[in-house]
Amino acid sequence: MKNPLRNIYSHVFFKYGVSIMGLAGGYDAWIITIGNEILIGKIINTNFAWLGRKLTLLGYKVRRGMIVPDDINEIANAFICAMRAGAKVIISTGGLGPTFDDKTAEGLATALGVELELNKKAFEMVKKKYKEKNLELTEHRIKMAKLPRGAIPIPNAIGTAPGIYIIHDNTHIFALPGVPKEMMTMFEDYVEPILREIGPKLFFIEKSIITRGIPESTIAPIIDKVMRESRVYIKSHPKTSERGEYIVELHITASSMRKEDAEKEVKNASRMLVKEIKKLGGTIKE
Amino acid sequence: MKNPLRNIYSHVFFKYGVSIMGLAGGYDAWIITIGNEILIGKIINTNFAWLGRKLTLLGYKVRRGMIVPDDINEIANAFICAMRAGAKVIISTGGLGPTFDDKTAEGLATALGVELELNKKAFEMVKKKYKEKNLELTEHRIKMAKLPRGAIPIPNAIGTAPGIYIIHDNTHIFALPGVPKEMMTMFEDYVEPILREIGPKLFFIEKSIITRGIPESTIAPIIDKVMRESRVYIKSHPKTSERGEYIVELHITASSMRKEDAEKEVKNASRMLVKEIKKLGGTIKE
Repeated sequence: MKNPLRNIYSHVFFKYGVSIMGLAGGYDAWIITIGNEILIGKIINTNFAWLGRKLTLLGYKVRRGMIVPDDINEIANAFICAMRAGAKVIISTGGLGPTFDDKTAEGLATALGVELELNKKAFEMVKKKYKEKNLELTEHRIKMAKLPRGAIPIPNAIGTAPGIYIIHDNTHIFALPGVPKEMMTMFEDYVEPILREIGPKLFFIEKSIITRGIPESTIAPIIDKVMRESRVYIKSHPKTSERGEYIVELHITASSMRKEDAEKEVKNASRMLVKEIKKLGGTIKE
Repeated sequence: MKNPLRNIYSHVFFKYGVSIMGLAGGYDAWIITIGNEILIGKIINTNFAWLGRKLTLLGYKVRRGMIVPDDINEIANAFICAMRAGAKVIISTGGLGPTFDDKTAEGLATALGVELELNKKAFEMVKKKYKEKNLELTEHRIKMAKLPRGAIPIPNAIGTAPGIYIIHDNTHIFALPGVPKEMMTMFEDYVEPILREIGPKLFFIEKSIITRGIPESTIAPIIDKVMRESRVYIKSHPKTSERGEYIVELHITASSMRKEDAEKEVKNASRMLVKEIKKLGGTIKE
């Protein structure tokens, strides 16, 4: 059994001898971004941040992101890596459309060792979309209904290409389109309810403190101290260089089965931080 | 010898029997992003897009991106994956600062199987920075000068933490800070000249065409045709859903040893596309 907070909280729990190992059995999530346009820097990967946030708030630990080109083997390799690493949830974006370089379904089928086949439900979805628009069903349009064997198509209310949902061993795999509006709608309508159902039911609480007047390297030992004395995770983000004015954001997070506990931890840690920083002559903007 | 355009151009070259295999020996680049803040969606990974664009314009093929948490083993694993895959260049961002969770140097040392040690040159850089600011050298500040054995420190003109440059077998590894301004300055001042020197010296040309009035699924066979008849790569990006108005961006790219050749290819392909799209009643905005 894996600890869902294994990385983020390990040093806290280890130091305190407190562990929630086994409490919630492995809620690692991987996000796979598919598309050359992301790799060549033509498009900024906002889908990733949006999904990372959603998954975190749902109590999952986003363990890794992978960005791969429109290539069947590369796509398959990414899914295989995530499955082997024991991901509970894998979410991919991109590569579901009608063109030659939309290869996610084929890559996923390769990863799972199953055939790509015309999915009846997906075909009905695609057929309906084009019938509404009075467009004929061409080979390129039918392609969008070819899913790995065993897949459940995810309805696409905004666009045309259905998403793909497959449960493989203990891993829930969701392949969503790359167009942000389609992806977000499908996630919220279809994926999120499933993730809540199979998820860890942990509450994630966060808070940011902006400090002024102290370099990050001076704050570093304070962070160490507060993290030793609480059950939060604190990450510092210098907002300008240490050359100019010292502005550092301290991002405090905690997760717990009980919302009040996580809130209390964040509040206490925040108070300790503020006290120490003021002691050193820094100013605070919460 | 690997073909630097193996993925992007493979189908074109295969169909034409034209190959540039061996012409330039393997210019794959991997980008590794280190930091929980990216995984939890607190920060959008703009560094990735910036680096992807830079590397592409320098003629490298950005083959994969990996986003990993602030965890030594995860960081080490990402570097190992990239080296095993035969990357010519690996660029990481993040994890070089003074706090406990800045673990890139240690992760990279683990990946390379070398010790972390106080680097004399890096120590001089760090010492100078703090002397200028009249700040003492604490343990957390000295930490930034601890690099994997054999590393060359990269000067950080904006912030404090030096970057890391290591050549391992045939792979050039650059670890840069996560603060965008520091990262970009260090890349342009230090990394880019090296990448030009060891790089493929290919010219990358691109062009975008915006089409209106035709769904992506109708354009798909046109793209197939033009790609069969030219040496460009075309990727379509639907700008709205197929339900509303049909707007599709066609992004045409080509690389060549001679700039004129790449320009010519893009120009010809663009002309073919426009002709076919107008034939179907679509309008064009170049």
